Amino acid sequence: MKNKISKSRRSFIKSMAAGTFILSLSPLIGFSQVKGKQTSIVKRSGDKLLLGMVVFDGFQLLDTFGPLEMFGSLREKVDIIMIGQEHGNVKSSAGPSVVIDRTFNEINGLDILMIPGGGGTRREVNNQPFVEAFKKLAMETAHVASICTGAAILAKTGLIDGLKATTNKRAFKWATSQSDRVNWVKEARWVEDGKFFTSSGISAGTDMSLALIQKLFGHDEAIRIANGAEYEWNEDPHHDPFARLNGLVD
Amino acid sequence: MKNKISKSRRSFIKSMAAGTFILSLSPLIGFSQVKGKQTSIVKRSGDKLLLGMVVFDGFQLLDTFGPLEMFGSLREKVDIIMIGQEHGNVKSSAGPSVVIDRTFNEINGLDILMIPGGGGTRREVNNQPFVEAFKKLAMETAHVASICTGAAILAKTGLIDGLKATTNKRAFKWATSQSDRVNWVKEARWVEDGKFFTSSGISAGTDMSLALIQKLFGHDEAIRIANGAEYEWNEDPHHDPFARLNGLVD
Repeated sequence: MKNKISKSRRSFIKSMAAGTFILSLSPLIGFSQVKGKQTSIVKRSGDKLLLGMVVFDGFQLLDTFGPLEMFGSLREKVDIIMIGQEHGNVKSSAGPSVVIDRTFNEINGLDILMIPGGGGTRREVNNQPFVEAFKKLAMETAHVASICTGAAILAKTGLIDGLKATTNKRAFKWATSQSDRVNWVKEARWVEDGKFFTSSGISAGTDMSLALIQKLFGHDEAIRIANGAEYEWNEDPHHDPFARLNGLVD
Repeated sequence: MKNKISKSRRSFIKSMAAGTFILSLSPLIGFSQVKGKQTSIVKRSGDKLLLGMVVFDGFQLLDTFGPLEMFGSLREKVDIIMIGQEHGNVKSSAGPSVVIDRTFNEINGLDILMIPGGGGTRREVNNQPFVEAFKKLAMETAHVASICTGAAILAKTGLIDGLKATTNKRAFKWATSQSDRVNWVKEARWVEDGKFFTSSGISAGTDMSLALIQKLFGHDEAIRIANGAEYEWNEDPHHDPFARLNGLVD
């Protein structure tokens, strides 16, 4: 298996067949790729998927760009846009700023919607217009993923009530306090339930994204992308040493 | 060792004592942190270090933001700025754009200078003003690091002539063709030689950055940051399965 380098810690992968991806590619049609002027509704054309990453002041860098690195290797298959509440730039918790490509009200649905964590989530969980706009977009989108404390905002929407989800292990108490209707999982690198993926803290989003790529495009493609990034993928969603490190499990 | 989770694959770490960091903190003084208007020369004040990441159209996301995630956790000790040839935004190879904080000629030295790889390096190695500006800044800076094919630009400066360095393993032939005066290392996650750190492809920059943090602030701090990011640090610079995967070693 010269072409496969990844941490197959357990036999989990066997249960996720590559064949599921054809079904997953068809839920939303009629959107065209991002080429028009900024005031247009974003639409997808052809067979490309449209991935939107929601960002806000105080977003976490690796939560955001680990996943986008992996999806960014699928240039022929996926377009990426940065989504914000308003046009302009937003500043990460570490300092660097990114450019908003589209606001919430310029989009009426995506194939993949993601939201990172970061210190700014403390503010955004109480920003009702933000939560509502995110909820509307999530309802219109086929695959929705949160990274780290982005799960707190996702939980606030009510869309994962009754579902399993996880979040950052150091900030677990705060994030899970945003909703007692979610079945929070203490020990997981990421959790998939229905159309929702939720990852553990910061770097976990990269591993989760490869699992979503696997779901959409197959295991070989996920491995190809991981290897291209010289990344040793933890492809076992149950491998989570940080739950114990942060005292969440014995 | 409840607080230590990382891949101690070999005994490398024993040779890097935390005590080296005091010496490393003092090479540049008189620079103040980034607060002024955009036309001012960037200066550092107090005990904070100033880290500049050079970006250009077609830069690679994870090359850039994996390292900045790790250094971004040192908010009390390090300020981060994005450096470009001109003001405005630059677009990553994956699509998202970032904001330039300072141009080369607004800076006269840093504590840490980094340059990522990405498709844009193919253009920038032939952009003589860019290479010269990067070279000048690298000569004025205490610690200089390249990620992935960023090593091609570093090699073009001549500053690592006669030194050991590494680069992306899939693009190894192209990157190393930019200089035959560098002692290119085929199998390495990263290489340290003098004040220069060079990493292998994309995700390797994150591991290398933790090694630089260890050099500056000690091993405990590097582990604390990795754990906070829920990141399983490959702290062995010799662990590089991608050299073999790409046919560089048998």
